[in-house]
Amino acid sequence: MKLQVTDMEDLARGAAFLGTGGGGDPYIGRLLAQAAIGEFGMPEVVEPEDVPDDATVFTAAMLGAPTVLIEKAANGEDIDLALKRLSQRTGKTPDYIMPIEIGGLNSMIPILAAARAGLPLINADGMGRAFPEIQMVTFNVYGIEPCPAAIVDEHLNSAIIEANGAKQAEDLVRAVAIQMGLSTLVSVYPMTGKDVKAYGVHRTLTLALEIGRAIRTGRESGDPVASLLSYLRTTEYYNKCAVLFDGKITDIRRETTRGFAIGHCDVEALDGSGETMNILFQNEFLIAKKGDKTMTLVPDLICVVDRETAEPITTEGLKYGQRIKVIGVSAAAIMRTPESLDVFGPQAFGIDEPFTTIEDLNNL
Amino acid sequence: MKLQVTDMEDLARGAAFLGTGGGGDPYIGRLLAQAAIGEFGMPEVVEPEDVPDDATVFTAAMLGAPTVLIEKAANGEDIDLALKRLSQRTGKTPDYIMPIEIGGLNSMIPILAAARAGLPLINADGMGRAFPEIQMVTFNVYGIEPCPAAIVDEHLNSAIIEANGAKQAEDLVRAVAIQMGLSTLVSVYPMTGKDVKAYGVHRTLTLALEIGRAIRTGRESGDPVASLLSYLRTTEYYNKCAVLFDGKITDIRRETTRGFAIGHCDVEALDGSGETMNILFQNEFLIAKKGDKTMTLVPDLICVVDRETAEPITTEGLKYGQRIKVIGVSAAAIMRTPESLDVFGPQAFGIDEPFTTIEDLNNL
Repeated sequence: MKLQVTDMEDLARGAAFLGTGGGGDPYIGRLLAQAAIGEFGMPEVVEPEDVPDDATVFTAAMLGAPTVLIEKAANGEDIDLALKRLSQRTGKTPDYIMPIEIGGLNSMIPILAAARAGLPLINADGMGRAFPEIQMVTFNVYGIEPCPAAIVDEHLNSAIIEANGAKQAEDLVRAVAIQMGLSTLVSVYPMTGKDVKAYGVHRTLTLALEIGRAIRTGRESGDPVASLLSYLRTTEYYNKCAVLFDGKITDIRRETTRGFAIGHCDVEALDGSGETMNILFQNEFLIAKKGDKTMTLVPDLICVVDRETAEPITTEGLKYGQRIKVIGVSAAAIMRTPESLDVFGPQAFGIDEPFTTIEDLNNL
Repeated sequence: MKLQVTDMEDLARGAAFLGTGGGGDPYIGRLLAQAAIGEFGMPEVVEPEDVPDDATVFTAAMLGAPTVLIEKAANGEDIDLALKRLSQRTGKTPDYIMPIEIGGLNSMIPILAAARAGLPLINADGMGRAFPEIQMVTFNVYGIEPCPAAIVDEHLNSAIIEANGAKQAEDLVRAVAIQMGLSTLVSVYPMTGKDVKAYGVHRTLTLALEIGRAIRTGRESGDPVASLLSYLRTTEYYNKCAVLFDGKITDIRRETTRGFAIGHCDVEALDGSGETMNILFQNEFLIAKKGDKTMTLVPDLICVVDRETAEPITTEGLKYGQRIKVIGVSAAAIMRTPESLDVFGPQAFGIDEPFTTIEDLNNL
């Protein structure tokens, strides 16, 4: 894969879709990435299978509440410092930069990081979507430790966390992030090329870019949602997908609490049938129910888009009266294993319902 | 100065007195230090003037709320890990261990740390008393940075904090400490022998030991409070001192909040005069007022002791009906400079009254 500056808008839009409501608004991230590319050049994008087994791979991401992340932005120096602190602690220099999640802002931050560091970027991530907590990645599921974990704020205060276990790491990093004002840069899960090949969700930068392209070309041809769905059906991971609901938002509740944006929204059908959909979220959308019937469950993706333009809408962008389509999408196979479901299935979010695939729930 | 295992009880009692209500109960610390001395031998105690200028000095302390610290104890491995993490980050091996505060538990933890590490202990600290927050030490007042700062919990989770400024370090370390359960081991203010000589409060281990001795010998001769005061009057720092009040506790309010034990207590005179004293605390006693008249103000020391035995009473040990004497004691000169008062004078604790020395307040 080769990235161009002109791809950034499609990539950002595709990543916003895969953000499933979270991951922050990639608009600012796109501007920052474009500026960094202008100054430092576009990073080379490398396929996971071309990364040597013993290569050192560092990730880069923003961590906080999306409601706050959109108000503050990575200044670049904070990204550099996160990588530097992790280098100092591990005694290793990164050979590659990789996204830890592909959704939202965090598809763009690694481009910024790679451009600034003059390093290649790996076409993979740890979930093929976005998730709110550090332990919720395939790497943790398969035994890679998130620590040492570096966290840096915009004033360049920093911490290196070394916790026994991923949930403890999440708790400590979250406590620091809250104190830092919930807009931080992190570099977690320092790993090897071998780890990326074995446990990464591959080619997700390409997928985000192509999703963005499908929406754009769909707008030109008049039906962006149809264009998006027909592209998704050709992909390796996201091929089970459906429009779950077509309606307007009649209620939206959200609060920033415990370091997250938590809430729900209600949607009423536009066809006069009186049907309603309720969607719960913790940074990302977790469960979508039509009346009493569950239509899609985490880790499968629930994506809200504008019903005319297919523009992805993040949880903080939800507004009363918005006319939306709710799209359900299958997650990558590695995200649906019993081990993965233990870490980021419905129960991990307090939802008392076993995971069932979108294809089984909707006879796809 | 040479420390013996048989000195530990006097030292712990003297340190509890200098803890001015805070610093945690040194009883557990004494047991731990005795056990470490039994296993690893008594550390050599070195006077600050005998420490080479370029020596690397690490501190060791527990940080949290005293109400929690007494329930959990340093297991030794956590102390070792705090020193190790700081070594890794600074690239320096400590030549000496030093208390950061002499009050309470934190007079004992450095003995434990030095014994386990096989390093000499410096006869000095950063305040000659106890204080609740990291920035409240002479070293910070005179420009030594608290960071990198290592913090470790009993499960050996750890963090290295690097903040721009001591107050930011306090805020971040406190956030981590709260997440860790408010009973943590820290190593902060890595410094040189030259720093200790210039800005330390010297010979405070000796002073704590002698205070404990004066209380013990006073008990044997029948008037421990008198014995204590007559010893204090011979010292370099604590020579202005007085019994401020003799009474029984009629009200005590305390809560563990924002990572501290905060509250106040009211005392009623035993002589039937109807006079009352009110004492405010944030881990340590901050201000003692007889009626409307301020008798002693932080950073001068306010110490509460049992009126018969002169046993120091920590804020968490205060009980309704206790018969106590409140003793005011002058702080070291370096603690009363305008620069020091900016950092830990009354205003730093939200007290709207300028610092006045105990000698001026009481015509001593």
